[in-house]
Amino acid sequence: MGAENIEYFFAPKSVGVIGASRDPKKFGHIIFRNLLEGSKKVYPVNPNAEEILGKKCYANVKEIPEPVDLVVIAVPQEHAIKAVEDCREKGVRAAVIITAGFAEAGNQESEAALLRKKGDMRIIGPNVIGLYDAYSGIDTVFNLRHRQQRPRPGQIAFISQSGAFGSAVLDSASFEGIGLSKFVSLGNMADVNETDMLEYLANDDQTKIIAMYLEGSKNYRALHEKLKSSKKPVIIVKAGKTKQSGRAVASHTASLAGEAGIFSGMVRQAGCVEVSSSRLLGVANAFGQPLPKNTRAQIVTDGGGFGILAADALVKSGLRLARLSDSSVNKIKNFVPSYASVSNPLDLTGDADTARYRNVLPVVLSDSGVDAVVLILLMQISALDSNIVDAVASAKRFNKPIFVCMSGGEYTLLHRRMLEEKGIPTYSSPEETVEALGHLSRYNKARQYRAAF
Amino acid sequence: MGAENIEYFFAPKSVGVIGASRDPKKFGHIIFRNLLEGSKKVYPVNPNAEEILGKKCYANVKEIPEPVDLVVIAVPQEHAIKAVEDCREKGVRAAVIITAGFAEAGNQESEAALLRKKGDMRIIGPNVIGLYDAYSGIDTVFNLRHRQQRPRPGQIAFISQSGAFGSAVLDSASFEGIGLSKFVSLGNMADVNETDMLEYLANDDQTKIIAMYLEGSKNYRALHEKLKSSKKPVIIVKAGKTKQSGRAVASHTASLAGEAGIFSGMVRQAGCVEVSSSRLLGVANAFGQPLPKNTRAQIVTDGGGFGILAADALVKSGLRLARLSDSSVNKIKNFVPSYASVSNPLDLTGDADTARYRNVLPVVLSDSGVDAVVLILLMQISALDSNIVDAVASAKRFNKPIFVCMSGGEYTLLHRRMLEEKGIPTYSSPEETVEALGHLSRYNKARQYRAAF
Repeated sequence: MGAENIEYFFAPKSVGVIGASRDPKKFGHIIFRNLLEGSKKVYPVNPNAEEILGKKCYANVKEIPEPVDLVVIAVPQEHAIKAVEDCREKGVRAAVIITAGFAEAGNQESEAALLRKKGDMRIIGPNVIGLYDAYSGIDTVFNLRHRQQRPRPGQIAFISQSGAFGSAVLDSASFEGIGLSKFVSLGNMADVNETDMLEYLANDDQTKIIAMYLEGSKNYRALHEKLKSSKKPVIIVKAGKTKQSGRAVASHTASLAGEAGIFSGMVRQAGCVEVSSSRLLGVANAFGQPLPKNTRAQIVTDGGGFGILAADALVKSGLRLARLSDSSVNKIKNFVPSYASVSNPLDLTGDADTARYRNVLPVVLSDSGVDAVVLILLMQISALDSNIVDAVASAKRFNKPIFVCMSGGEYTLLHRRMLEEKGIPTYSSPEETVEALGHLSRYNKARQYRAAF
Repeated sequence: MGAENIEYFFAPKSVGVIGASRDPKKFGHIIFRNLLEGSKKVYPVNPNAEEILGKKCYANVKEIPEPVDLVVIAVPQEHAIKAVEDCREKGVRAAVIITAGFAEAGNQESEAALLRKKGDMRIIGPNVIGLYDAYSGIDTVFNLRHRQQRPRPGQIAFISQSGAFGSAVLDSASFEGIGLSKFVSLGNMADVNETDMLEYLANDDQTKIIAMYLEGSKNYRALHEKLKSSKKPVIIVKAGKTKQSGRAVASHTASLAGEAGIFSGMVRQAGCVEVSSSRLLGVANAFGQPLPKNTRAQIVTDGGGFGILAADALVKSGLRLARLSDSSVNKIKNFVPSYASVSNPLDLTGDADTARYRNVLPVVLSDSGVDAVVLILLMQISALDSNIVDAVASAKRFNKPIFVCMSGGEYTLLHRRMLEEKGIPTYSSPEETVEALGHLSRYNKARQYRAAF
């Protein structure tokens, strides 16, 4: 059914929670409460309760006196099929089925029954943790908010076949200050699958970048076509890449892991980016930057050692160390101590304050020999203050990618989040910074190459 | 001079700060205050102040009425040589020279003068950020504590040629709950060098593991000998591994980067471990675990996707997926839902509570086919509570390595720190977890191999 009606999942006018509960430990309670806090029109459905959190409770979704766009189904497995039937009769447009125990548990027949009963209604799931829209506030994720924070609005949509991986990524994104547009846990993909979501997100204005966690596809050919035609960058983590782990995939989300080598080739050929799980967020976040014209990166640092590590990583990753023009070098020399090394890495030295960065960055960024800047900010050193955030953000006007490496603890994290909110991607090590820039750079090359045909 | 008198750096009876200042922004102030807070006998030295932070200030180190073991020198470059001379005349045993502007700035002559004037006194530096002993409380690091936290006492000693890299690692260790025994920033290594420190740490009871950041050595042969004979694992980050970055090394800590390939070979041949900078702490921390007998790892998870990612990483890294005995499988089946996959990965499923881990872990760890456990704990899911920390810690009694993967934000980090304090290493991704286990495992193999000669 493609992308049809998928909008009802993310921007429903009203939501029902079948299996809403008064027990604060139950998923049905957490989901209902989270939706209520988003101040949406939310109706609890549970035949055994009069009222939940002060809201009148309905015995059946069909008794709700108004139309219902979206329903979350969080009932025991044996009641799920009946719930779907009720929803269809009510005219519900979309249902998220949290309930597990279907194809992933060998129960193919029940999963087929869901499809037979659903009519035109779209289903996400079963066997999912829910979905989240940072803009509309829709949040059907059943994890408590103090355990798993929700990220701020941003430009990355994240599609995950695994619920737990999805929730860890939401939590990490929030922690690091990275914004997401939408998140959806796809689970068994009885109806809406990864290809449908790609089709839907292609036209979603808030989404500029797509990140995916994939275990397998029921239709690799359709996936390949969709990846190939995607105008938005798609960053993929593929799980189940070995014979041994492929078996685990089948019992997790009931999908076929496929042949890892072929999969990687297909992703590359489609112009998409495959990464390891620990790099997914960071690499996706890189794609919020302008595309670099070429591969010459200038390192600017307040710590010599980190500059050297970044240079090592750059050279290893196939990027090139930019060479500042003589005119840039001369200008920069006015702003730095005589012992500073004005080269690449450009070492502003440990007493570099915000003013020094503010003076030097425009010179570096307007040098035509520089395609991208790797900026190392060590906040442990006392000369830098929080004004560095604005100094870096204002350098965005040069329309070249700026990647910031900040390694450390609490104080550093605080400033990473501030930079992220200004649209500057940050990383905790030189290797991660350079890897992310490398992906952005190669993506651009591949795009130019493909455009030439 | 080898390790002679190096103990005075870490356990001095009294400390002088030459260049102590009343200006809270000056290094001389921060160092003095940090030392005072460690409640050591600390004397400020500054000819222009009567009193600093309520302590009588001396115009010259020689005026201090008692013997002084350690001195920190944080004066402008032109006064540093005289300060060293004064210290020698006073009979000071050890000096940390924070001051920069020596060989790293092309000023070889000044650096030679330091050596001529110092007599028997040991010098760390010049051009360093200081040193830190988590046990004695000695802290001469000039970074403010809210910008750069200090780690709790632990078993890893960390030697860094780069000051900024050192302070970022201290900060990160503290943030992640990893303990250190000692930290020392070596800078230009005019006197005490990396080989002296290795010799000293070999006999330091609080240090079980040595982590190093190295740009270059003045004596690779001596370093090699010391690494070869080290009974404690040494984990090394080498910066300046490319021709391009080697030049930057010279102007940073005045060392010769050497040939990267030869260096890596030397490290491997000496039975040490070379890692990238982002992995230094995590891999060093792995070596607090018992050595695995063999390479068969069992994955135990509450998230199917993470289990599959860990399995992928294990197979890729050359480790093997353990195969649980039939008897273990049968026992475990009593403790998990019927739909749980009792295999490798062992998926305890998303509703796994602490009791389930408490029941299953002893069965897994006492299975003779299991050499190590990769434990995935996703704290986003509401079934797990903080008792999981004790449940995991009590599994240490089986004397097999346990590596925990916890991915997420604030709540997750809180529990990572709790586990770290109990001596369980934690990692934020399956890839990092498995990489660390892989290093521990290969180290053991290499050790067995070398012992056979």
